[in-house]
Amino acid sequence: MADIRSLLKEIDNYKSRMFGKDFLLTWEKSGDELKQILAIADLLKLMRRENISARCFDSGIAVSLFRDNSTRTRFSFASACNLLGLTVQDLDEGKSQIAHGETVRETANMISFLSEVVGIRDDMFLGAGNAYMREVGEALSSGFKQGVLPQRPVVVNLQCDIDHPFQTLADLMTIREEFGKNLRGLKIAVSWAYAPSYAKPMSVPQGLITLMTRFGLDVTLAHPPEYTLMKGPMEYAHRMAEQNGTKFQVVDNMEDAFKNADIVYPKSWGIESLFHNPQEALEISKKYKHWICDEEKMKLAKKHAIYMHCLPADRGYEVTDTVIDGAHSRVFPEAENRLHTAKAVMALTM
Amino acid sequence: MADIRSLLKEIDNYKSRMFGKDFLLTWEKSGDELKQILAIADLLKLMRRENISARCFDSGIAVSLFRDNSTRTRFSFASACNLLGLTVQDLDEGKSQIAHGETVRETANMISFLSEVVGIRDDMFLGAGNAYMREVGEALSSGFKQGVLPQRPVVVNLQCDIDHPFQTLADLMTIREEFGKNLRGLKIAVSWAYAPSYAKPMSVPQGLITLMTRFGLDVTLAHPPEYTLMKGPMEYAHRMAEQNGTKFQVVDNMEDAFKNADIVYPKSWGIESLFHNPQEALEISKKYKHWICDEEKMKLAKKHAIYMHCLPADRGYEVTDTVIDGAHSRVFPEAENRLHTAKAVMALTM
Amino acid sequence: MADIRSLLKEIDNYKSRMFGKDFLLTWEKSGDELKQILAIADLLKLMRRENISARCFDSGIAVSLFRDNSTRTRFSFASACNLLGLTVQDLDEGKSQIAHGETVRETANMISFLSEVVGIRDDMFLGAGNAYMREVGEALSSGFKQGVLPQRPVVVNLQCDIDHPFQTLADLMTIREEFGKNLRGLKIAVSWAYAPSYAKPMSVPQGLITLMTRFGLDVTLAHPPEYTLMKGPMEYAHRMAEQNGTKFQVVDNMEDAFKNADIVYPKSWGIESLFHNPQEALEISKKYKHWICDEEKMKLAKKHAIYMHCLPADRGYEVTDTVIDGAHSRVFPEAENRLHTAKAVMALTM
Repeated sequence: MADIRSLLKEIDNYKSRMFGKDFLLTWEKSGDELKQILAIADLLKLMRRENISARCFDSGIAVSLFRDNSTRTRFSFASACNLLGLTVQDLDEGKSQIAHGETVRETANMISFLSEVVGIRDDMFLGAGNAYMREVGEALSSGFKQGVLPQRPVVVNLQCDIDHPFQTLADLMTIREEFGKNLRGLKIAVSWAYAPSYAKPMSVPQGLITLMTRFGLDVTLAHPPEYTLMKGPMEYAHRMAEQNGTKFQVVDNMEDAFKNADIVYPKSWGIESLFHNPQEALEISKKYKHWICDEEKMKLAKKHAIYMHCLPADRGYEVTDTVIDGAHSRVFPEAENRLHTAKAVMALTM
Repeated sequence: MADIRSLLKEIDNYKSRMFGKDFLLTWEKSGDELKQILAIADLLKLMRRENISARCFDSGIAVSLFRDNSTRTRFSFASACNLLGLTVQDLDEGKSQIAHGETVRETANMISFLSEVVGIRDDMFLGAGNAYMREVGEALSSGFKQGVLPQRPVVVNLQCDIDHPFQTLADLMTIREEFGKNLRGLKIAVSWAYAPSYAKPMSVPQGLITLMTRFGLDVTLAHPPEYTLMKGPMEYAHRMAEQNGTKFQVVDNMEDAFKNADIVYPKSWGIESLFHNPQEALEISKKYKHWICDEEKMKLAKKHAIYMHCLPADRGYEVTDTVIDGAHSRVFPEAENRLHTAKAVMALTM
Repeated sequence: MADIRSLLKEIDNYKSRMFGKDFLLTWEKSGDELKQILAIADLLKLMRRENISARCFDSGIAVSLFRDNSTRTRFSFASACNLLGLTVQDLDEGKSQIAHGETVRETANMISFLSEVVGIRDDMFLGAGNAYMREVGEALSSGFKQGVLPQRPVVVNLQCDIDHPFQTLADLMTIREEFGKNLRGLKIAVSWAYAPSYAKPMSVPQGLITLMTRFGLDVTLAHPPEYTLMKGPMEYAHRMAEQNGTKFQVVDNMEDAFKNADIVYPKSWGIESLFHNPQEALEISKKYKHWICDEEKMKLAKKHAIYMHCLPADRGYEVTDTVIDGAHSRVFPEAENRLHTAKAVMALTM
């Protein structure tokens, strides 16, 4: 229990103003706030190991608003809420009357009278997902100001077009479990990988380059020329590297990124301009089938290097079974940690 | 907390015999019983404002049985149940084996072994919805008498072909918040409005004319000639107006109804005889596109008049954005209050 | 409360090692273990009658993993979990990303980080359902050993291709409520019956012949020549009859099975070799439309004989309304008891 006490002390020392605030992008939060989230996530993980209940609500409602179909994110959000004592109510847009010509303001307020938190996932329309979350947030604020809502629920980002904060915080937590809290000088390779399926969101690589450069890691981003990330996160990552004395560089092949890396994070994503032109996008992607993370490429990384992926991975395309199921892989701790970072953010904002 | 005490005293003073009884139509309940529901709803709203938990069940199951697709009603019922400590289990007929030639009796009993309450929504088949609820109720009673069920869950109407009691009680609650408890002499306009979508249920206007005439309000119903309401609720509304010294009149245009009204409630509904003949119904409805609640028509009502709607509204058809989003609108309090009336009825019957 | 005390004493006396163990087939459990389950189910039923909460979890997650569409099993599992204090999260394979090329190991571990129990129903593929449960179980064990999972959730069988343990234990509980705990010499007729629908699972008759022969009952199995049960359960039932001094015989007509039976359990099932050849299977089944449980056939059984069915029954085909709704029928106690056996197994394994 000594660990619990020292974690509690650490948590107390951070200055944060997250209570009642939405959680939409990691780069809207201070370093102290993110460290506090990580410490609380550590605490919640420890409490779970010691079988101590983290329930802090007697009753209460969490709304999950999904604009795409994601079992895992839904499942993980519901699990996190449940352990805090909240019940999740799913609201699928499109299936519901909600879509019948209502404004966002109306929807947002209708679902929020008795809710503590609204988790939104909307990652399929570039330029739209995060904007939609902000629109919901503003609608709630205005509803609260006008007395429509007795309390203003917190909006949390369960993945948007720009960022995937619970995931990347869980990734950072996993890296700290592996390498300790001082990550300075470690190299992470964030690389594009081939997948035959469809245009996967860009939120994870974008979330990684913007977060890891702030926490001491040297980031190498690798992708074929067509697969550039959004301008905003790229500029932010460059600025953060400069401010924090870390490196952020971009290369055009997986091999260079992997060389001497401590952490490799190869993952498929779509072409920004072709997100809704699957045929052309698929045609281009076929040129890069060799962008697969296999044992050969893992040998380029350091001996103790870890392989990470937010799952689900396209096995046989993004990564071989031997790598994802092998000794380098940390995909399960990442997945578990996502539950703890989600709980931590919710506990801090509500 | 003085308010809470005086509400508790008020609640105590009403004579009611609602415990263990189904809640299917407001006109099956006495005036005292409805006032008690309203007082408890007020209390629950106040408790929510004071952040006092209304949880009264340690664990328990509420079943929601939907015979149509309604996100809002489902959502609102689930929220209300959750705050009382009950978990909702959805049972969608049609999706389930339930539809495979089973009798209502079998279904009703199967879902009720461990349930406290069964909420049913069935509003699409005129003459069928409320009857179905009664059939379920009788099946449960007979199951309980025969020892099949250890306890008999309460059946509550989440909207049927005839009435929408949680909604209209919430509307009455909203009106009392606006005008006080003495509503005598106030005029409410319950008016048909145009909508291009589909045949909307008649339960809300029917519920309004039968409830408001009992609570001191003068009711003016307005609709085009084809859009008559069901005979039963019409006769009951006339009788209640007579018994309670209120007025109930029917006019054939929105303007006359709005004149000097304190409350306007314009809403689309279908033609009783054409509920399942969409083409002919849509053809007729097109003649009445001018039945829209806009700022012009609002000027006919009193200056302080409030605009009400059970949501979702067909914006641009039933009502203009300026009205529904404007100063007259009370649509959000109505929506919030529906949660409190639902909780109040469940707390009183279970 | 004397009953409660004596049940507690009885429960204490049984030797069982079920904690932390999966529950996949009744014949993997000792007689003492099954008796302990039945005693706890009796206790839970009594507690429910006395309105004593059986909640033993403050919070926690139960996962239901369905590989077919079953409202009742899902509903009953969720109810059982809720009353223990667990929240159910549904995971429908096929609807989810889970199906996109992931291995069972990945799925199993992903859903299990914070779960106490994983209930699986998979009955449509002969030779596959129970095997799949074991695969999940092994994946969880290996995940736990490798430190991926902080705890290993228990896997419970909510119906597979081979057995339907919560159902058959509930059936045994119902029979004991009717005839007492000493069932020696009673005759149960497990008979095929005609249904026009589709190839129903063989798990119930297989579960019945393997369980009832262990608890003193003489079992007569009746079916048309094409409708043989699986080899494994048949051999086990023969062995159990021998070991326990009970009878297990097979006849080719419903009448012989019903003669002098104390319990009749007529139910449709499919032809093992034609499970996925509906046309040929339906063609063969038509020859046996007279295999219906009607009042005539009930007269062949003993006067006090009870009629059982796991529901839903194909009324008018498997059984007439007069029988299933009549005095012989025990279908509702069976259904209620299934909730109690499910709770009992979960309470014992977790």
